[in-house]
Amino acid sequence: MVVFSGTVDKLYPVAIMASGAVAMGMDVDIFLTFYGLNALRLGEPQKNQKMDKNYSDIAPMLAKLMKEKNMPSWYDMLKQAKEMGGVKVHACAMTLDLMGMKKEHLDPIVDDVVGVGEFVSNAKEGEITLFI
Amino acid sequence: MVVFSGTVDKLYPVAIMASGAVAMGMDVDIFLTFYGLNALRLGEPQKNQKMDKNYSDIAPMLAKLMKEKNMPSWYDMLKQAKEMGGVKVHACAMTLDLMGMKKEHLDPIVDDVVGVGEFVSNAKEGEITLFI
Amino acid sequence: MVVFSGTVDKLYPVAIMASGAVAMGMDVDIFLTFYGLNALRLGEPQKNQKMDKNYSDIAPMLAKLMKEKNMPSWYDMLKQAKEMGGVKVHACAMTLDLMGMKKEHLDPIVDDVVGVGEFVSNAKEGEITLFI
Repeated sequence: MVVFSGTVDKLYPVAIMASGAVAMGMDVDIFLTFYGLNALRLGEPQKNQKMDKNYSDIAPMLAKLMKEKNMPSWYDMLKQAKEMGGVKVHACAMTLDLMGMKKEHLDPIVDDVVGVGEFVSNAKEGEITLFI
Repeated sequence: MVVFSGTVDKLYPVAIMASGAVAMGMDVDIFLTFYGLNALRLGEPQKNQKMDKNYSDIAPMLAKLMKEKNMPSWYDMLKQAKEMGGVKVHACAMTLDLMGMKKEHLDPIVDDVVGVGEFVSNAKEGEITLFI
Repeated sequence: MVVFSGTVDKLYPVAIMASGAVAMGMDVDIFLTFYGLNALRLGEPQKNQKMDKNYSDIAPMLAKLMKEKNMPSWYDMLKQAKEMGGVKVHACAMTLDLMGMKKEHLDPIVDDVVGVGEFVSNAKEGEITLFI
């Protein structure tokens, strides 16, 4: 999965699909780029409340329902999927460099920093590839 | 195809690619989640006029052109693709539950309600996987 | 890659992934539709400064950093990837027709105009499929 987006509503499918795949014994590689990488800056997962502005008619209701139903956050779901094993979270080297950041500025859920070449060769082996 | 989005402009590629794939004898599985599921709430396909706000410079012109050229709606295209066979439309169980809805609140084009596990095992077999 | 989007931030991953794939000896087929096709109208790549409105908190900073660091534009990156060979850029026939345009209204980086059937049969053979 290439995770380009950084809104909470799109980070949920990332975490949920990662959990589903791991539960089925698959390996998952998440490649964070642009706003997806920014969403995993240190401290950001705990603050991020962004929802897609295209759906301002129903997004606030969905966000409210998630809180009321005590749904775990996408971040906790992803952390749990990682603990089950098989999930690797990679940061895009180019984005990190552009933002003038280093690995230590990212949440510890991020495993390593990779270039696009490594991502492409990785994706080539994958059974499911998604750009989110 | 995972259909996360619910704007008319993004639902067109879903319907068009489904039609194209079915015409070539392929099977198509559409997994509706978040705003994509909301777009298939009963009565919603007939009302939905949302276009992506990032393109407010040309989106209204495109919407107008589609009407002027009597282009069939994405919904009618998808219905027709289904009639040709090979297209299955699945609702994401978690989103449905979050919204406090049941299958009968969805448009009859939706075949069933599935969990993420079923979707992942399905996608694993697919030749083309897209997140829209 | 199906390129539906036309914001600069999303066109970068298109160009970067195309470059990465070509560098690894892979073939890349880019299918431009909707706003992605509009982004390659003649003269448009040079003018386009659109960034995703969902990230108006950090998008302007990223755009500024890209200029300051003299990062090549997505368009120059894509042109360079094409010169290395193996990249084909296809325009969606239906979108072109809807916009009342012909191939000569598009940037010369576009190779040809294809229907959805051709795209689907092409994508079926692909190892990585992404909707951007």
